[in-house]
Amino acid sequence: MASAKPDTRERMVGTAARLLATQGYHATGVAQVLEQSESPRGSLYFHFPEGKEQIAEEAIRQLGRQLGDVLRAKLDKKPDVRSGLGSLLRMFARQLESSAFQLGCPVATVALEAASASPGLRRACDEVFTSWEGYLAERLRRESPRRAEPERLARSLLAILEGALLLSKTRASTEPLRDAELSLDALLGDERTSGSRT
Amino acid sequence: MASAKPDTRERMVGTAARLLATQGYHATGVAQVLEQSESPRGSLYFHFPEGKEQIAEEAIRQLGRQLGDVLRAKLDKKPDVRSGLGSLLRMFARQLESSAFQLGCPVATVALEAASASPGLRRACDEVFTSWEGYLAERLRRESPRRAEPERLARSLLAILEGALLLSKTRASTEPLRDAELSLDALLGDERTSGSRT
Repeated sequence: MASAKPDTRERMVGTAARLLATQGYHATGVAQVLEQSESPRGSLYFHFPEGKEQIAEEAIRQLGRQLGDVLRAKLDKKPDVRSGLGSLLRMFARQLESSAFQLGCPVATVALEAASASPGLRRACDEVFTSWEGYLAERLRRESPRRAEPERLARSLLAILEGALLLSKTRASTEPLRDAELSLDALLGDERTSGSRT
Repeated sequence: MASAKPDTRERMVGTAARLLATQGYHATGVAQVLEQSESPRGSLYFHFPEGKEQIAEEAIRQLGRQLGDVLRAKLDKKPDVRSGLGSLLRMFARQLESSAFQLGCPVATVALEAASASPGLRRACDEVFTSWEGYLAERLRRESPRRAEPERLARSLLAILEGALLLSKTRASTEPLRDAELSLDALLGDERTSGSRT
């Protein structure tokens, strides 16, 4: 009868994802996840025998899939990579403004913390970034089949997006995101004119 | 007689800076700062009545000045912004490799944590990023006095640098930094040909 309600495990991962996206890894306690997901005390180690690192890895992968879906939808809906990424940057700007500049890239804070906190979590974050790069590279390749090194360009596009989100969150201003959107023209420019788009 | 040795306050800020740069804000405890700076127990609240947030703000400002000096030195030593930033990116790549990918941007982790942890610390991080942008914008203006909106370009250059550092640290690979260096040509390209460099 509980089919419409997510089960305990699912609720815990969803709550952890929300907390990690806003606060990061070290600020998020296991007790907070249990409380906010309304889960019984024993359920953490029942569902996640390896504890906080394990639930964090699953939550990061979930956040990665969710944002990956958004990224693909934006790229599918727009006629080219430039306008798809522009739409994504504007979505992030609105999200930052409506969250009092708490919600930037949901993975970035944990990714930076993970380097010293948890090798497994660092790998999970890297897999997320790599999958986003993969979507971007694929769309760049489809847009301009003769483009040289779409993977390299995809990495730089992700870098400027992540950096602009970091600066916008820190500044509590969407200006760095707007500037990054203008810089997309320079980053994609040469390729767009020399590519073989139809 | 203790003139050659940094005093307690100075040692505490230096230790906090080192810990914040690698671990971030939440993972760094006051006890750890006291222990690693070999400071007496009572000295934290004696020197920093507002506690952890206060010492973190001072440490972030110190890290900001130190990296600001490095940035200016790189830009002064090289004939143009492109080669100065290339040299900076290669310095970061060496630093990441020699620190087992622990040491990226010394401010970024704290900046992302600060949005939810401490308004004062967020402002300190923002001041650091703004000062780096200022150096960059000034050099861009000097290089090409007719360049339009050097502040905007400086912000995007800082964004790609920060994003590439984040991706390189997460990937435990210097590839994103190398790709970002290649993207500097596209970001600076138009301006370099249309600018009035001498």
